[in-house]
Amino acid sequence: MMVIMTNEHSEEEMNAILRRLDEIGLKGHPIVGVERTVIAVVGSIYPELSDELETMDGVESTVRISTPYKLASRQTKPESTVVKVGGVEIGSGKTVMIAGPCAVESEEQILATARAVKEAGGHLMRGGAFKPRTSPYSFRGLGEEGLKLLALAREETGLAFATEVMSVREVEVVAKYADILQIGARNAQNFMLLEEVGRTGKPVLLKRGLASTIDDWLLASEYILNTGNPNVILCERGIRTFETATRNTLDINAIPLVKQLSHLPLIADPSHGTGKWSLVKPVGLASIVAGADGLIVEVHPSPDHALSDGAQSLNFQRFRELMEQMRVIGETVGRPLLPAATEPVRT
Amino acid sequence: MMVIMTNEHSEEEMNAILRRLDEIGLKGHPIVGVERTVIAVVGSIYPELSDELETMDGVESTVRISTPYKLASRQTKPESTVVKVGGVEIGSGKTVMIAGPCAVESEEQILATARAVKEAGGHLMRGGAFKPRTSPYSFRGLGEEGLKLLALAREETGLAFATEVMSVREVEVVAKYADILQIGARNAQNFMLLEEVGRTGKPVLLKRGLASTIDDWLLASEYILNTGNPNVILCERGIRTFETATRNTLDINAIPLVKQLSHLPLIADPSHGTGKWSLVKPVGLASIVAGADGLIVEVHPSPDHALSDGAQSLNFQRFRELMEQMRVIGETVGRPLLPAATEPVRT
Amino acid sequence: MMVIMTNEHSEEEMNAILRRLDEIGLKGHPIVGVERTVIAVVGSIYPELSDELETMDGVESTVRISTPYKLASRQTKPESTVVKVGGVEIGSGKTVMIAGPCAVESEEQILATARAVKEAGGHLMRGGAFKPRTSPYSFRGLGEEGLKLLALAREETGLAFATEVMSVREVEVVAKYADILQIGARNAQNFMLLEEVGRTGKPVLLKRGLASTIDDWLLASEYILNTGNPNVILCERGIRTFETATRNTLDINAIPLVKQLSHLPLIADPSHGTGKWSLVKPVGLASIVAGADGLIVEVHPSPDHALSDGAQSLNFQRFRELMEQMRVIGETVGRPLLPAATEPVRT
Amino acid sequence: MMVIMTNEHSEEEMNAILRRLDEIGLKGHPIVGVERTVIAVVGSIYPELSDELETMDGVESTVRISTPYKLASRQTKPESTVVKVGGVEIGSGKTVMIAGPCAVESEEQILATARAVKEAGGHLMRGGAFKPRTSPYSFRGLGEEGLKLLALAREETGLAFATEVMSVREVEVVAKYADILQIGARNAQNFMLLEEVGRTGKPVLLKRGLASTIDDWLLASEYILNTGNPNVILCERGIRTFETATRNTLDINAIPLVKQLSHLPLIADPSHGTGKWSLVKPVGLASIVAGADGLIVEVHPSPDHALSDGAQSLNFQRFRELMEQMRVIGETVGRPLLPAATEPVRT
Repeated sequence: MMVIMTNEHSEEEMNAILRRLDEIGLKGHPIVGVERTVIAVVGSIYPELSDELETMDGVESTVRISTPYKLASRQTKPESTVVKVGGVEIGSGKTVMIAGPCAVESEEQILATARAVKEAGGHLMRGGAFKPRTSPYSFRGLGEEGLKLLALAREETGLAFATEVMSVREVEVVAKYADILQIGARNAQNFMLLEEVGRTGKPVLLKRGLASTIDDWLLASEYILNTGNPNVILCERGIRTFETATRNTLDINAIPLVKQLSHLPLIADPSHGTGKWSLVKPVGLASIVAGADGLIVEVHPSPDHALSDGAQSLNFQRFRELMEQMRVIGETVGRPLLPAATEPVRT
Repeated sequence: MMVIMTNEHSEEEMNAILRRLDEIGLKGHPIVGVERTVIAVVGSIYPELSDELETMDGVESTVRISTPYKLASRQTKPESTVVKVGGVEIGSGKTVMIAGPCAVESEEQILATARAVKEAGGHLMRGGAFKPRTSPYSFRGLGEEGLKLLALAREETGLAFATEVMSVREVEVVAKYADILQIGARNAQNFMLLEEVGRTGKPVLLKRGLASTIDDWLLASEYILNTGNPNVILCERGIRTFETATRNTLDINAIPLVKQLSHLPLIADPSHGTGKWSLVKPVGLASIVAGADGLIVEVHPSPDHALSDGAQSLNFQRFRELMEQMRVIGETVGRPLLPAATEPVRT
Repeated sequence: MMVIMTNEHSEEEMNAILRRLDEIGLKGHPIVGVERTVIAVVGSIYPELSDELETMDGVESTVRISTPYKLASRQTKPESTVVKVGGVEIGSGKTVMIAGPCAVESEEQILATARAVKEAGGHLMRGGAFKPRTSPYSFRGLGEEGLKLLALAREETGLAFATEVMSVREVEVVAKYADILQIGARNAQNFMLLEEVGRTGKPVLLKRGLASTIDDWLLASEYILNTGNPNVILCERGIRTFETATRNTLDINAIPLVKQLSHLPLIADPSHGTGKWSLVKPVGLASIVAGADGLIVEVHPSPDHALSDGAQSLNFQRFRELMEQMRVIGETVGRPLLPAATEPVRT
Repeated sequence: MMVIMTNEHSEEEMNAILRRLDEIGLKGHPIVGVERTVIAVVGSIYPELSDELETMDGVESTVRISTPYKLASRQTKPESTVVKVGGVEIGSGKTVMIAGPCAVESEEQILATARAVKEAGGHLMRGGAFKPRTSPYSFRGLGEEGLKLLALAREETGLAFATEVMSVREVEVVAKYADILQIGARNAQNFMLLEEVGRTGKPVLLKRGLASTIDDWLLASEYILNTGNPNVILCERGIRTFETATRNTLDINAIPLVKQLSHLPLIADPSHGTGKWSLVKPVGLASIVAGADGLIVEVHPSPDHALSDGAQSLNFQRFRELMEQMRVIGETVGRPLLPAATEPVRT
């Protein structure tokens, strides 16, 4: 850490800072420049230090130099993490496809979708049982009944599934059924929930928050990793910007950058990332080319009857087309589609 | 709602939409323009309708015309809501000051601060017992012990207090001690938590999310109001923008606009809204002039020893100066400082 | 256009609006709903109308339904526009590569780069002679001398070039030498400059502004098209968001969306869009997969000695690798790399 | 400047950097920490240095410590700059009001407005003759004819005026008539124009760009100051954020912060900053309380007939009310309204 002194700082102020650093076991090296004086701080720096020092007299600001996250960093663990969900490996260098409806609506709907996903070569299902909705008056999911339907679809097709957990209270019931616990964008900094899903030991799909920087996102993953659960899958799903022509702005830059910074597997969600079904295919394929380990997409038997997110859902035909192109693109970029899952699995 | 048809839509597509609207009890009025055809939809529109219609063939987009929130709207309830916390009224036309440390650290710290707030004329205390922190390695609060210390300070000074609830699991314990349950910016769309705090019937201080539009924020309040709890206090605390010179960008425009759109009381948080103590006074006073019903500010006996948010905390002297200027400004704009609370209160 | 009336509007206010519409040759259809009354406006709507109506008593807001741009719209002209620069066609379904240094620095530098670009199969050169710099103390380009060096490189390699015009005063001199006039992001709404470059009749490369919505960007193109010059090439180069880990956020969603909305060719600039050379390849290839007609990238013989934008420039070896992968990806997505230009050209 | 080395850097890489720094007359101090090694660079650092060093092997990133702007900085010149326009001083500690229509439309309109502004106690006029419009199909101003009408209004009322210059070509004609040359938000980084208006020596009103950080904005002012013209007036007029309920987001934080960082006078534009006339008064008064030296507001005899920006213009009655409240608020915060201008002036 660098402590940047004000132009008018006094020697006593400088000495007070050096004493304080000494008290807390750190070492300060003053560097006197032409325009500015800075103190380089060496030692094991804790997150509050910046706040503490910035309020001392004579200090203008501080600059962190090392990344604030540790367990998620590729500097800590250079080899890529592979998360296993049943027989499916995420982050292994093969492209993984997770697909299903925004919300589970009925047995017919989820079974039909699961079969279509499986037939097209998909590896895992998604489907919401507990739905976060901006308005309290919107359809909020079938709850445990929805989880049972997802389990039924898994039994029939052998596809394991991811589903969202919205609060610490549902962690137990969701973990009882689901193979992957999903943390939605609106809960991306719900730290108690992150720790609670972490403690289940199950794979966690961690969506980036609408206003999360890459640092925020990796620090959020740290809450899960810190419980001893290494099975975190990051998910880029778009950030909020001034552009309103699309629902969110999928941050394509973040895909290769996060793969450089972290060893965790990363998938992209072009359905939420764009909000328009006609953009899901081009942006989904682009995400794979940029380095994503897979996609999570919304598929619905009849998008114009969907109870939520119909506008961004693919119908079965369009999903098959996406899978076909994914097969070709995956080969081209050296991350071929994972061979299809073949039997029922439980993690 | 307006349904905007594509330029190439067919008559059958138009008729399919009119039939669908009819099925669900709504009435569609086609309007054929020079460039475009639209269908005006009249009736009791539910939130999913937009999604449903946008996936039908021939539809380009839909436009909502009425606001999505109902209970929070001034159209529903023209007179301003006044929330009572002990003897303190928020939203009554008098300016209310809530002050205290970011986090409760010790008995000495919270008692000293409570006394200083009271002596300077403050009305309510704030203080974190459960702290959301971007990094899991930061100080995360004293938990229930912190709540007890806040209660002790209340006993001594008579100042009721607001404190954050981070998850549904803590609602009970926080509600046992606190006078106002605070929902932090990172939980602004944690819908299960909103309902749970709503059901306590206690006043709720609802911070705006870092990426929440005004519509999102008022819809979040709707989750609380919808439980039958009318005691919602909105809090503008800055949004995330491209500007990094300040921690957040306090949205001054939102203050008068939300007061026009909603009957709920609204306070501003210039500490988080700016992230710099030297900006708290000018931006806090500006917020009152713009129409806020009060402020919530961070005060610490010794900001440069604070375990969190020291950089944005006022010391006692600076808080007194703020109160003095607030007194004058409040008179000037016709929303004078509320007379100081005089005796211990419990809601 | 829809005019949304306030809940409290009077009949006289409604009639005043209908009269006004009538005066200006438009027709208003009132639609009385359960919650709201709206007036559907039919006729040839001009841009100011929205402003005019919104200030009339009884009006809450207006909603445009047709797009504000005309000449750039695919509704006006369904077939894709192909811009010819010498023998190179942009927007023809083949992928085009424009490459060169951020700034022209010397004869050696530009000749070496032009040769490397040509040898690797690039089609056009880029290079700055007049450089916009955030700070007045930065290197601002060689001016006309730089243009002459670019022309020299063109003579030797046969590669036509794009270069930025920063003000109406330089349009003449830049047009004298350059094959494509480039409008930078900071001038994306410098409307006088847009018209002036339009009037040269030369191809114009129009970068999206840092804060331009897609509508703003297409309206900016309209300033050029409106001069009778159809040769506009759009360039997505990233927008400004809260994320600071990358220089800008390349808006990958905008690529397929703008190709749907407009007939104009669109290229991507992954150098400015990311600001980091290690992200240029993955994000550049992703842009092609998302639908871009080509890329513009920064290449420098020795990026760590570049006078500007070194951090985002590729060296020759990395550029060759990009071209090789582009060749494969282009084939895969059905937009193969354009065969290399073979002889000197002037537009 | 701090150069942060990668974890894997070699000694040779470190030495290469130290040699390079030596070559260019700077001194590097290596500091070896537990986690990281950094080099503190001392000497007269030029803007490109960061780019240069970041591309060298072994370098992870660089961090600037001193501000990039010099002439605009309060460190360079601690006393506040006062800009004189005729008899009116901006930045003197008295509040200054600039008011007038968005666009000059006719002699009647501008004379009526100028009289109303003067009678209400306003100090300077604003009015657009050359209008930047997002769409080429909107009203774009009367050009020189508009300037003549503004001059006529000045003759009659004695109020000097500010008006926008859109390109270097109009600088001469605008400077011939106007007292203050205004640079609009869309030209905030049109660097050639900044220099050209600087060279006139006339006062320049520099609006912040929609996507300009505070650093960008102060660096833009540096282009003007660097021509030897010290008469720069900064204008906060809102930035572009994700919030669409208001036209822009007026950055209230920037007002006190820029007054701390720079000696230049700063005014606020609540008309563009909000886009809604009903927010102009509360946000305008708040801006003064936050520290602005004055306001620039849009006033129109009949806002619902304005050819541009009617929705955000005050009528005469509302402008008088704003002036009355400004008088009281100005006294309260110690920056009283400047006594009204009394006679015709030319700068």
